[in-house]
Amino acid sequence: MNKILKKIINDTKTFANQGKVATYIPELSKMNKNISGIVTIDMNNNIYSAGDTDIKFTIQSMSNIVTLLLALMDHGEKVFDKVGKEPSGDPFNSLKRLTNKNTDKPYNPMINAGSITITSMIKADNKEERIARIINLIKDLTGNDNIEINMDVYNSELKTGDKNRSIAYFLKDKNIIECEVCDVLDTYFKQCSIEIDCFDLANIGATLANDGISTITNKRIIPSKYATIAKAFMFTCGMYDDSGEFAVEVGIPAKSGVSGGIFCAVPNKMGIGVLGPSLDEKGNSIVGIEMLKLLTKEKNLCIFN
Amino acid sequence: MNKILKKIINDTKTFANQGKVATYIPELSKMNKNISGIVTIDMNNNIYSAGDTDIKFTIQSMSNIVTLLLALMDHGEKVFDKVGKEPSGDPFNSLKRLTNKNTDKPYNPMINAGSITITSMIKADNKEERIARIINLIKDLTGNDNIEINMDVYNSELKTGDKNRSIAYFLKDKNIIECEVCDVLDTYFKQCSIEIDCFDLANIGATLANDGISTITNKRIIPSKYATIAKAFMFTCGMYDDSGEFAVEVGIPAKSGVSGGIFCAVPNKMGIGVLGPSLDEKGNSIVGIEMLKLLTKEKNLCIFN
Amino acid sequence: MNKILKKIINDTKTFANQGKVATYIPELSKMNKNISGIVTIDMNNNIYSAGDTDIKFTIQSMSNIVTLLLALMDHGEKVFDKVGKEPSGDPFNSLKRLTNKNTDKPYNPMINAGSITITSMIKADNKEERIARIINLIKDLTGNDNIEINMDVYNSELKTGDKNRSIAYFLKDKNIIECEVCDVLDTYFKQCSIEIDCFDLANIGATLANDGISTITNKRIIPSKYATIAKAFMFTCGMYDDSGEFAVEVGIPAKSGVSGGIFCAVPNKMGIGVLGPSLDEKGNSIVGIEMLKLLTKEKNLCIFN
Amino acid sequence: MNKILKKIINDTKTFANQGKVATYIPELSKMNKNISGIVTIDMNNNIYSAGDTDIKFTIQSMSNIVTLLLALMDHGEKVFDKVGKEPSGDPFNSLKRLTNKNTDKPYNPMINAGSITITSMIKADNKEERIARIINLIKDLTGNDNIEINMDVYNSELKTGDKNRSIAYFLKDKNIIECEVCDVLDTYFKQCSIEIDCFDLANIGATLANDGISTITNKRIIPSKYATIAKAFMFTCGMYDDSGEFAVEVGIPAKSGVSGGIFCAVPNKMGIGVLGPSLDEKGNSIVGIEMLKLLTKEKNLCIFN
Repeated sequence: MNKILKKIINDTKTFANQGKVATYIPELSKMNKNISGIVTIDMNNNIYSAGDTDIKFTIQSMSNIVTLLLALMDHGEKVFDKVGKEPSGDPFNSLKRLTNKNTDKPYNPMINAGSITITSMIKADNKEERIARIINLIKDLTGNDNIEINMDVYNSELKTGDKNRSIAYFLKDKNIIECEVCDVLDTYFKQCSIEIDCFDLANIGATLANDGISTITNKRIIPSKYATIAKAFMFTCGMYDDSGEFAVEVGIPAKSGVSGGIFCAVPNKMGIGVLGPSLDEKGNSIVGIEMLKLLTKEKNLCIFN
Repeated sequence: MNKILKKIINDTKTFANQGKVATYIPELSKMNKNISGIVTIDMNNNIYSAGDTDIKFTIQSMSNIVTLLLALMDHGEKVFDKVGKEPSGDPFNSLKRLTNKNTDKPYNPMINAGSITITSMIKADNKEERIARIINLIKDLTGNDNIEINMDVYNSELKTGDKNRSIAYFLKDKNIIECEVCDVLDTYFKQCSIEIDCFDLANIGATLANDGISTITNKRIIPSKYATIAKAFMFTCGMYDDSGEFAVEVGIPAKSGVSGGIFCAVPNKMGIGVLGPSLDEKGNSIVGIEMLKLLTKEKNLCIFN
Repeated sequence: MNKILKKIINDTKTFANQGKVATYIPELSKMNKNISGIVTIDMNNNIYSAGDTDIKFTIQSMSNIVTLLLALMDHGEKVFDKVGKEPSGDPFNSLKRLTNKNTDKPYNPMINAGSITITSMIKADNKEERIARIINLIKDLTGNDNIEINMDVYNSELKTGDKNRSIAYFLKDKNIIECEVCDVLDTYFKQCSIEIDCFDLANIGATLANDGISTITNKRIIPSKYATIAKAFMFTCGMYDDSGEFAVEVGIPAKSGVSGGIFCAVPNKMGIGVLGPSLDEKGNSIVGIEMLKLLTKEKNLCIFN
Repeated sequence: MNKILKKIINDTKTFANQGKVATYIPELSKMNKNISGIVTIDMNNNIYSAGDTDIKFTIQSMSNIVTLLLALMDHGEKVFDKVGKEPSGDPFNSLKRLTNKNTDKPYNPMINAGSITITSMIKADNKEERIARIINLIKDLTGNDNIEINMDVYNSELKTGDKNRSIAYFLKDKNIIECEVCDVLDTYFKQCSIEIDCFDLANIGATLANDGISTITNKRIIPSKYATIAKAFMFTCGMYDDSGEFAVEVGIPAKSGVSGGIFCAVPNKMGIGVLGPSLDEKGNSIVGIEMLKLLTKEKNLCIFN
């Protein structure tokens, strides 16, 4: 398997030229566009890897799955009284259709309007406790106790976050967000700035693939039903407005972040974490998608086969 | 299994009261809202059934999967030069966003704009040949040689088809449809008026679940890759703008029609055909969805488990 | 005055280079982009002119004012049960917002959806009578008995009219149009293909400026109230989605057509007809607008001064 | 004239029942829905009045004309590099189309997105100076030295201003607003909370009707060109998304506020100020519009007649 991964790394290197590193915050634009890494973890906790797997990067919107799980554990499916379940057909940060006119809810928990709402629903006495709970769940999902916020990225997000502020005040005006906008956004910017690596991503994916049970400790982290819900949203909305394309061409549950990371949960088979900071126009890692195409084909991972 | 299906039929009967039969064409409104039927066919061609399985009804937009398969066999994935792969977040017959502004294509082959385009791409010297090819593929997929058009429904569609005419001329104006609008719509109205029953639907599902190979004849009807693509679109866009909800709550590839039928392809497990003419506001069979929820739970069919 | 007009013609000639002739139908693209003409007629029927005033061209959407007047005379203000009165902010042929969601009507009688609806409301036993009534009203408004349809342009419109067909079937589906789509469009394409010249346009403008009374015959052609309504729509929606700009920068009621003609009705002062086939991106005559700016300034015609 | 106004007050009283007082901020909802007042001032400064003309109320979005004038005097027509000139067809506080996609600007200076942008452009070293300049111009336009902010309304606006915050951060994200969002909104909420009465409104209208020259002092307050621009925007966008209706049915430049006030500038004839806190669904004073209809008819004020 390590050999396969190594070949995949080599065969996809050149795709990096077709995209570019995210520039919307200065900190992200410093990433080297030519690095790439891949890690897989199977249900017996066998770990395989290749490429630049020691690089740390921020989790960005991949954190949306973590906050969704936390909100589900806090409120059950009442979460969906405030956020819908349908793909929107629009870019994640589009301001055109923040809510579905028929339901007056954000379309789903993966677009910015939905994920900010989800963050606002996490139970906590204050913003310190809220971000602490998010970090703790990431520690449990990854089995990594050294999870921290990259404060430079956080400060960058703070400075350039006017679009998210516009979204959050829109949600506040509609009473979709109930707590203070500033507090929610503080948590949101922080959760996006949490640093992880490809191993962490593969572990999150493996736990979800394993029905919510850690492949490291064999302890249940997430109730089975919520692990299923998370995989469903990853499948239908996990790759921004390229999710339909990815479903047809690759066909596994995956969640992408603008830092160039993607994590996947192949049910009962494996978790996957990939990194490749060069992004396509939808905001997904170009090299990452190519690696996942090759691996999925090689190991017949498509959930429809 | 027959017992399970019988129980499911009984346990879901009352849901029919919550919806209503489609009325947009007079012929559909004549359906009895209280009937319901279910058929499953496994990969060894074992057939189980319960309820009103002898009722014939029109295939409506479930035919979109058949025409997509035909267009794929005619053109390969070049089909997607004209039609996208993303869910739209809008109702199937919405006129608001006929094409994705970024790509200038209909969002996907399941919404009306996309399916009319797909129909226009089927190779044929004339409209008679085009509809004949569609009927022939349905015969192959169902193993049923008695597939016919319900001419009363077809005439009803013709009379009330102004919305589809509006869509088709829009597509023609943009050169997305290349042949004559009247011819394409004639085929489209006819394909929607093809009569099938729950056994036929279960057989279509079983063939797709079985990688494109008929469980009756063990002959390949559809190339493996196109069977996968069909299942992917069923999963992401098969239940109109309730597809996301269905993906999260049920989690199997399914395609619905406004006649109240739904067919499902559970990969490597079974094909399912259900009927229940009482529809929810999205246009899906209420009883059908409830039956699928119970069956999926009972037999653990969700593709993420 | 003839001297002023001559100077205006000379001073605006070069603006023609900044735009291009309409090409959406082949017949229109044959126009010479460098011609220009201007005619003014005051309330005492004094006629002044300069430039290429002997050129004939088609009336295009300038006919929308004529059909609106006819529908008002047929139905009174009940016309507005089917068509709204608000500018839409979109291009005239946009398919994005055919109707105002709050009212379920086309926004106003000047955008295509509105003008097709207006045409459908003109009382007539058949399409021949409908177009005859439109031509007769143009004869009365212009005092010109030689008003005819340019059949080459009409045939061009017929061939390229798919966008208008899409709009018309949309309106039919919503029961906004009650008669046959083909008949309405036949009238619509014909009314757009009626040939006029700058004198005709100035006469239409003069009649409206003169409260609906012909400056030639001193006979009332249009009830006072409807002449006022026509001027109001010319002012708020007459220059496509440049109407606001024109209101601020020029400030007189005007209606434009893609053939490059514009007619104006300066209340109690004069009618103006201009021609300049080179169009800006909104579809308005570039030279025409420049001529109107100079003339309005020179003669202090702005209705707010 | 006083008799005419008195009759108008009496004949329109009952219309108040058809609407309701604005409730989006608690302070506004305290207004008595049954009061009404009207003041007219002609070009010789003759003042006529009837009804409850001693009532003070807040200027609300009628202040948009004042800030537009100030921005024009600060920057000339460069103002329109940032804000367009077209009606949008949407409600003033709609979040659907904050900017015109073709121009990437707010549609016009009267909708919230446009007026917040205009406020941000007023030259000032700090927010105190900015609001002081607005108040000073209102003093000049009204000839009333006692113009003050209603701090209760301002505090109400502050508390309920999330929609405007959402709009302002959207504009900031697009660099349409250059200064601090909090500062701009502070000015915006304050300018809306300035108290005036019907005499003040009639004076503002009279100054604009009189080409920018005060009818009280005969001193020029506003350059002629900018007075014309203000009247043009009042005419095309002054009555929210009822502006087209008002243009057709009444036909004079007018600007409305949700406090129930409207001021009008009938070119070279008169300024009008009316009050009637009962609003229609578009946000315009019902009694106010009825009073203006009667007065316009009685005195033949329509600018197209």
